[in-house]
Amino acid sequence: MGSVANYRDPLADRLGRLGTETAYAVALEAGKIKASGRKVYPFHIGDLNFPTPTVVKEACKNAIDDGFTGYCPAAGIPSLRKSLADHYNDVFGLSYLAENVSVQSGGKPGIGKFIMCVCNEGDEVLFPSPGYPIYESMAKFLNTKPVPYLYKETADGSFSLDVQELRTKITPRTKAIFVNNFQNPMGVAHTRAELEAIADLCVEKDLYCFSDDPYYQITFSDFNRDDFIHIASLPGMFDRTLCGYTFSKSFAMTGWRLGGVVGPRWLIDMVTKINTNDEACTTHFVQVAGVTALEHPEAKKFTVDMVNELEVRRDVLAEELNSIPGFHAIIPKATFYMMANVTKAMKAMNISHIETFRSKVLRETGVSFCTRAHFGTPTVGESKQYVRFAFSGVTVDQIKAVGEVLRPYMQQFC
Amino acid sequence: MGSVANYRDPLADRLGRLGTETAYAVALEAGKIKASGRKVYPFHIGDLNFPTPTVVKEACKNAIDDGFTGYCPAAGIPSLRKSLADHYNDVFGLSYLAENVSVQSGGKPGIGKFIMCVCNEGDEVLFPSPGYPIYESMAKFLNTKPVPYLYKETADGSFSLDVQELRTKITPRTKAIFVNNFQNPMGVAHTRAELEAIADLCVEKDLYCFSDDPYYQITFSDFNRDDFIHIASLPGMFDRTLCGYTFSKSFAMTGWRLGGVVGPRWLIDMVTKINTNDEACTTHFVQVAGVTALEHPEAKKFTVDMVNELEVRRDVLAEELNSIPGFHAIIPKATFYMMANVTKAMKAMNISHIETFRSKVLRETGVSFCTRAHFGTPTVGESKQYVRFAFSGVTVDQIKAVGEVLRPYMQQFC
Repeated sequence: MGSVANYRDPLADRLGRLGTETAYAVALEAGKIKASGRKVYPFHIGDLNFPTPTVVKEACKNAIDDGFTGYCPAAGIPSLRKSLADHYNDVFGLSYLAENVSVQSGGKPGIGKFIMCVCNEGDEVLFPSPGYPIYESMAKFLNTKPVPYLYKETADGSFSLDVQELRTKITPRTKAIFVNNFQNPMGVAHTRAELEAIADLCVEKDLYCFSDDPYYQITFSDFNRDDFIHIASLPGMFDRTLCGYTFSKSFAMTGWRLGGVVGPRWLIDMVTKINTNDEACTTHFVQVAGVTALEHPEAKKFTVDMVNELEVRRDVLAEELNSIPGFHAIIPKATFYMMANVTKAMKAMNISHIETFRSKVLRETGVSFCTRAHFGTPTVGESKQYVRFAFSGVTVDQIKAVGEVLRPYMQQFC
Repeated sequence: MGSVANYRDPLADRLGRLGTETAYAVALEAGKIKASGRKVYPFHIGDLNFPTPTVVKEACKNAIDDGFTGYCPAAGIPSLRKSLADHYNDVFGLSYLAENVSVQSGGKPGIGKFIMCVCNEGDEVLFPSPGYPIYESMAKFLNTKPVPYLYKETADGSFSLDVQELRTKITPRTKAIFVNNFQNPMGVAHTRAELEAIADLCVEKDLYCFSDDPYYQITFSDFNRDDFIHIASLPGMFDRTLCGYTFSKSFAMTGWRLGGVVGPRWLIDMVTKINTNDEACTTHFVQVAGVTALEHPEAKKFTVDMVNELEVRRDVLAEELNSIPGFHAIIPKATFYMMANVTKAMKAMNISHIETFRSKVLRETGVSFCTRAHFGTPTVGESKQYVRFAFSGVTVDQIKAVGEVLRPYMQQFC
C-alpha cells in the first residue's frame, strides 16, 4: 500500500455512509444454525418458493436461441418499454408512452438513480420508517439527508401513515419523498385519503416522488379496491413522480434482475443517460422474456394463483401467531410480510432489546425472522416492539410448525 | 411542476457533468442514412457479428430450467467467483481467490464503483486520451477531476504512451489512474516497460489503479508475447489494482451483461456493498453460463477462432485503408479497432474539423466510422487527425467494399 510516509486512507468518505440490508446477516446466522444440525423455520427471507412461470422461461430460452445476445438500447428494447407503459396504463388508468420507460436491472437501480437525478448534496429526502432500508442507505451514500416519516399501529390493528407527522418533517431543503404503497415490511395498503394527502404535500411543497411499486399485484381479497390508485395519477403528480417497477415479486423473477422506471420524459431521459454510463443496457434476452411476463395470459394466471396461495399462507400464519402467548399479528391486506407486535412477549421474557429477542428465539427454537430494526432506525417515542414474518418462501406446513414450536416455548414465560 | 412561485430546478447539478458515449450518435446518424435507402458500411460499431458460443447458450438455458432464477449473493455465485479468479491466475500468473472477485453486470459498472470506492470529491483521476469515454464521464459525474494522459503516434507507425508527460500530470491530489492495456480506440498493446513505468508511478505517488481488461484475449500473431503481463502482477500493485473483466468481447456476449471486478479484499468487499444497494445481484442463470464460458474447451476454441477471423479482417482493412489517398492506417496488435491518420485527407479536402470530415464522408459515401473526438477532448498541441474503424461487426467483403468506395472518392481531392 505504498510506504508509510505517503500512506493515505484508500477508501472514499462516502463508503462510511453506505448502509446495507442487515436482513442478510439474519440469513447468514440462520444458515449457520441450520448447518449445526438444528431445524430452521425460514421467515426472514423475502424470496419466493414459486418457480418462474414456464411461459416466461421458454420465452427467454427462445430469445437466446434467436440471437438476442448483442447490445440493445440503454433505455431498453422498444417492445418492453411499450409493454410496461401499457401495463401501468391498464392497471392504474395512467397515460404513459414507451418513451416514459427506462428499463432497469431490477427494482433497486431506480432508487439511487432517482436521488442522483433530483437531489443535490444536502437536500433532504423523506423515507418511510419502518421501510425498505435501501432508501435511507442510498440517500446517505449520495450525501443527501434522509428524514424518516412514521407509521403507527392503529386501534383496529393495522398500520397507518401519520400524515400530520409527515408534514412537520418537511423543510425548505426537502426535495424528494419515497412512497412505498403495499409496503415492506408492514404490508400497509395505503388508503386513497393517505395517498391524496401525500400528493397534496408534494404539490404544495414542490417535492419529487419515487413510488416504489414491487407489490401492487399482490393484494388480498379483503383489500378495499376503492383504495387501489397510483399516486402518479393524482392531480399535479404525473410530472413529478418516478415509478419503480420490478418483475421480481409478481412473476417470481427475483434472480432475473429485470425492472424499469416509469415517469416523465425529463426524468426518464436522465436515468437512461446514467444507464449508458453505468451498465450499457439490461440483459437483452431477459428483456424479451419480460414482454411475455407482462402480456401472456399464462403469466397473468400465474400471478393470480400465487396470490391465492399467499393468502392461504397469510391466514394460517395470522392464526398461528395469534395463538402464541405475547404475540399479536397485524394482518396485511397486501405483500407477503406480516408484522407481529411482540411487546408483551419481550416483557414476559424480561428482554429490552429486539435483537436480543430475535437471536434468542432463533437459537432456542430455530424460528428465524427479522425485526423492526432491520427496516430503519427506531425513532424516539417508539414504545412497541415488532418482528416481521415473510411468508413468501415457506409452506403452509412450515407455518403450522412455527405455531407448534413457539406456543410451548412462549408458555414458559407468559 | 408546481406553481411558478415555488418552482426550482428539478435536476441535480451532477447531471450537468454527466457525459455519454457520443459514438451512439454516429450509430443513429448512420441508421437514418441507411433508412433513406443508401448503403451504409458500419465501422462505427464495437459490437460483434459472431454468435455467442453454443455451449454457453445451452448452459444458460439449462440453468433457467434448473431453477437458477432466485436471488443469489451480491458478490456473485461462488463457482463464478472462483472461476474468474482462476482465470486471472492462469492467464497472468496472479494469485486471486474467489473472495477477490465481485461479479458485475458487465464491464461498465466497475468503472463508477472504483471511483466511488477510492476517490473523494476533488480528487484527481488520470485517464487515457484518446480513451474509452466512460472514465472521464463517470469521474466528472462523481465530482472528481479527470486529467487526461496522452498517447502519441511514433515513427514506426504505432501509438505509444508518453510516460514523461504522464508524470507531469500527477499532483498531490491525484488519487487514481485508469489503465486500459489493449486499448480502445487505438488498439495499443503496451510494452512491458510502459506498464512497469505506470506501476512505478502508482507506487511512488500512492495511486490506485483500475485496469480495464476487455480485450486481452484478443491479441494477434505479431503481438510480442513478452509484453503480455498484467499491471496487478508488478511489484506493489496487487493491493492497489482493481481489474475490470467483461465477458462481452471474448465470448461475443455483449448483450448478456456479465463481468466482474477482481482485486484486493478491502476493495472487493466495498464494491460488493455497493452491489447490495444498487442492484442486489447479477442475473443468476447468466452467472451459471459464465462459468461455462470461462471453463469449457469449446468456449476457449470459440475465442481462438474469432481472433483468427479478426486478424484476417485487420490485415484486409489495413491494406484497404492504406490504398486510400490521404489515409494512413496504424495497425493494431490487439483489439478490433484500427485508427487511421487522415490529416492529409482532410488537408486535401480543405476541412479543419474532424467531425465535419466524418459526417461528410458518411453522407457522401455511406462509410461510417468514429473519430478521435469520440474518445475524449483532443488536447492542446494535437496536430494530427484520426478516425477509428471497428472491424468487429463487418465481413471481409464489407471491408473490401470500403476501399472500393473510398479510393475513388478521395482521388477527387488528392
